[in-house]
Amino acid sequence: MPIPDPIGWTGDGAVRILDQTLLPGEERYVTLDTVDAVAEAIRTLRVRGAPLIGIAAAMGVTLALRGGSPSLDTVCGAAAALGATRPTAVNLRGALARMARRAAAAAAAGENLALALRHEADAIREEDRAMCARIGAAGAELIGGDALVLTHCNAGALATGGIGTALAPIYALHATGHRVAVVADETRPLLQGSRLTAWELARSGVPVTVIADGMAASRLRQGDVTCVIVGADRIAANGDVANKIGTYGVALAARAHGVPFYVAAPTSTIDPLTPDGARIPIEQRGPEEVTGWRGHAAAPAGVGAWNPAFDVTPAELVTAIITDRGVFAPGDVGGSI
Amino acid sequence: MPIPDPIGWTGDGAVRILDQTLLPGEERYVTLDTVDAVAEAIRTLRVRGAPLIGIAAAMGVTLALRGGSPSLDTVCGAAAALGATRPTAVNLRGALARMARRAAAAAAAGENLALALRHEADAIREEDRAMCARIGAAGAELIGGDALVLTHCNAGALATGGIGTALAPIYALHATGHRVAVVADETRPLLQGSRLTAWELARSGVPVTVIADGMAASRLRQGDVTCVIVGADRIAANGDVANKIGTYGVALAARAHGVPFYVAAPTSTIDPLTPDGARIPIEQRGPEEVTGWRGHAAAPAGVGAWNPAFDVTPAELVTAIITDRGVFAPGDVGGSI
Repeated sequence: MPIPDPIGWTGDGAVRILDQTLLPGEERYVTLDTVDAVAEAIRTLRVRGAPLIGIAAAMGVTLALRGGSPSLDTVCGAAAALGATRPTAVNLRGALARMARRAAAAAAAGENLALALRHEADAIREEDRAMCARIGAAGAELIGGDALVLTHCNAGALATGGIGTALAPIYALHATGHRVAVVADETRPLLQGSRLTAWELARSGVPVTVIADGMAASRLRQGDVTCVIVGADRIAANGDVANKIGTYGVALAARAHGVPFYVAAPTSTIDPLTPDGARIPIEQRGPEEVTGWRGHAAAPAGVGAWNPAFDVTPAELVTAIITDRGVFAPGDVGGSI
Repeated sequence: MPIPDPIGWTGDGAVRILDQTLLPGEERYVTLDTVDAVAEAIRTLRVRGAPLIGIAAAMGVTLALRGGSPSLDTVCGAAAALGATRPTAVNLRGALARMARRAAAAAAAGENLALALRHEADAIREEDRAMCARIGAAGAELIGGDALVLTHCNAGALATGGIGTALAPIYALHATGHRVAVVADETRPLLQGSRLTAWELARSGVPVTVIADGMAASRLRQGDVTCVIVGADRIAANGDVANKIGTYGVALAARAHGVPFYVAAPTSTIDPLTPDGARIPIEQRGPEEVTGWRGHAAAPAGVGAWNPAFDVTPAELVTAIITDRGVFAPGDVGGSI
């Protein structure tokens, strides 16, 4: 069964998304026809994954012009609203800056603003799809054959406009007849690993085993994991990697057991303006994501939680970064863009 | 509010337990009046924690003699049934061996078997209470003052006959007016950290913050955690420590950030017959603990999970072991008993 596209246009130019908060139980599509609705969908993680957030925001900008009088101010206001949804992923900022530049150029040239932005959003999405394919090819060549891959969170088709980033090499190897299987960290608190990664891999026929996050170190000690591959929400110029909370602990365990730790990300994730990981803003989310689950209290009333959405893995723990422009040592990634 | 005793006798000699699977939502006590009922309660984790499992099993043995004709065979059969419930904790094996020895001695001496076993179970429980108090004193002296302690799973009053093992130094410091606070790993899959540790600490007035397990490495990087303290289900003669799954990853992160990593356990947890961690049997539990939670599917139907209940932290990652006989370097623990 093919993986459904997590985002698309409706016939009349609204944005249609797969509501990822309802997976794996329910496959429900939602139509978003305002900028605010897209911003809300990003904030509540109905749409998530660094590349897909960028695509959703770009598509969301176009909604500012629907039915109203097209103006540059409207576009800039929409970009500002969408840019404020989540602070860590740099793809969001990059996609919105690109939409704003295109809008300015279109306005200056007297082009149809709505049409220009629709084409730009389509280009961002199409480029992401192509970047995923190239990441898959580069990663498959790096791994070179049958593999058992441990991954954290979801950096798959559900997180991108294509076959994913961390999962792209897995899909590429699977498509060429290699025996590839995945150990998926469930990724608390929001379970993107068990809910999303397991869902899209199972649907694609790739064998997947879920583990609780605290099991990763023991799993890596077993000696049968070929490599770890994770995605990234932002890569600093020095190669430090912000990714879903829990990634850093996996990187430490991979190092302890000599298992290669790869980060797979489009070059749009590399942020030359952020010199190192300490400068990456880390989104803090509400405690209820940790203390409860689907309406059940996991902790007693009144007990607080600390809930950073991301952590930073220092470049020295990263074996290589797999990008659409090839495989880089983390220290060289700043020069790759 | 005092922490309720997790186990006790009813007026007519049955065993009364606090059903820990229902916490923190419900504080329900259950009366167990057969050996099978106690075995089932241990297997399903209604009663859990290495020391408390030992106590429950010892008390459970006495139920074999209720109403029937007291015989040594009955006692041995009960001990065998209870010993088969969980393989990793050595306290269980130790407590049952002690009950069997006492039964044999009582039979040889013509003593009242039921009375002798009731007294032996009480002694095991009382000794555990005293061991917890001594662990608390030794740990409080080691820490020496205000502290922020990170812990994993529940090695508190709910896991023992007293004030706990890992939490004992915290209660001891709190009782003597020190400012002590706890960061509790939620401890997937069964959430003993958020459900049990947070519950008993909050009830005792000790400030506690819950984190998802994958956040521990980031939390330790912050620099404000004084030390990690965890319990143990079995300590091998060389100082390797089996404890709740996820402990090993915390130990790796503590080492990476120079945070002391302490194991607190009664000497009954040290197993001189197990030379190293590789020989400790690790209980594998059902996949549904990982793939679902309180009836909700966390993973798609048909996706499997790997679910070891414990992991082994090698002695070289353990700063010290806090026991009822003082604080030992992990390499010296074999000689402490």
